[in-house]
Amino acid sequence: MSELEEKTIRSKNIFEGRIIRVQLDEVELPNGNISTRELVKHPGAVAIMAITEEDKMVFVRQYRKPLEKTILELPAGKLEPGENPAVCATRELEEETGYRADGINHVVSVYTSPGFADELLHLYEVQGLVQGVYHPDADEFVETVELTLEKAFQRMEAGEICDAKTVTALHIWKNRKVDRK
Amino acid sequence: MSELEEKTIRSKNIFEGRIIRVQLDEVELPNGNISTRELVKHPGAVAIMAITEEDKMVFVRQYRKPLEKTILELPAGKLEPGENPAVCATRELEEETGYRADGINHVVSVYTSPGFADELLHLYEVQGLVQGVYHPDADEFVETVELTLEKAFQRMEAGEICDAKTVTALHIWKNRKVDRK
Repeated sequence: MSELEEKTIRSKNIFEGRIIRVQLDEVELPNGNISTRELVKHPGAVAIMAITEEDKMVFVRQYRKPLEKTILELPAGKLEPGENPAVCATRELEEETGYRADGINHVVSVYTSPGFADELLHLYEVQGLVQGVYHPDADEFVETVELTLEKAFQRMEAGEICDAKTVTALHIWKNRKVDRK
Repeated sequence: MSELEEKTIRSKNIFEGRIIRVQLDEVELPNGNISTRELVKHPGAVAIMAITEEDKMVFVRQYRKPLEKTILELPAGKLEPGENPAVCATRELEEETGYRADGINHVVSVYTSPGFADELLHLYEVQGLVQGVYHPDADEFVETVELTLEKAFQRMEAGEICDAKTVTALHIWKNRKVDRK
């Protein structure tokens, strides 16, 4: 597919934050024209599909500064440098919801916004939930909510569930129920 | 949900690009602590589920600089300031694939990465595809690929379909087929 590729001519660091790094690249397009690409570098993240014995999915309600609103999402978190995503997922689930899991499986990994960011989100599902101890980070404020598939779809239609990873997870959950029938 | 909110103390512009704007906010957390939030402002985007008469979905193969690779995605594009998302979707579909549509419906709108970006992606489905004229932007390089649901899932398992909007669309497509049975 090399005929679609863009060659980097030069790369300029714009911003080095705690979480993201912003970079401006000058590129040569396949037709020889020169253009710029605004790039956000992100360490990657995990999200967890956790379903209770009562067949409810576990969500967290959380304020999201970029949106200036509180939304309902899958438990999730950023990867620490070099961290194994499955280990991160297990840790984030317990920190945010208090649940521990017996087993964990990888579902899919997706780039959240390939037009400007390299963030790769790893989606996991866990089995054998056991109530552990809720202990969020000191500066993390979340509330746990458990919903049936039907109620979760209602929250999505109402706009309270409105982020890509959680909407994807709801559709995967629905598909699995059908596959099992 | 005001008990989860973060109050903005001050806001600093870091970068003003052609597409994104980067902002560093100092916030007061619900416990009174002070923290910073790295925010990427984005104009929003559209993506289109277009299914041909042969029951194949239309994808575009495109080089994505942030990932440094070529991937297979839904036709998609950024919103121009003030642009109606449905109008943008119709335009992008024709530009990138040459297809015109008879009708268009909104499926769902999702925040792609609510931890650091405000990008809202509007997903549409179109009906009555008619082959029009393929005319990408001068500096846009895309190839069209049409795949059955089964083949598309294989491409996802192989990692060539690997972005959140397209993975979501595949699961929605699969669910719809089941609902119709």
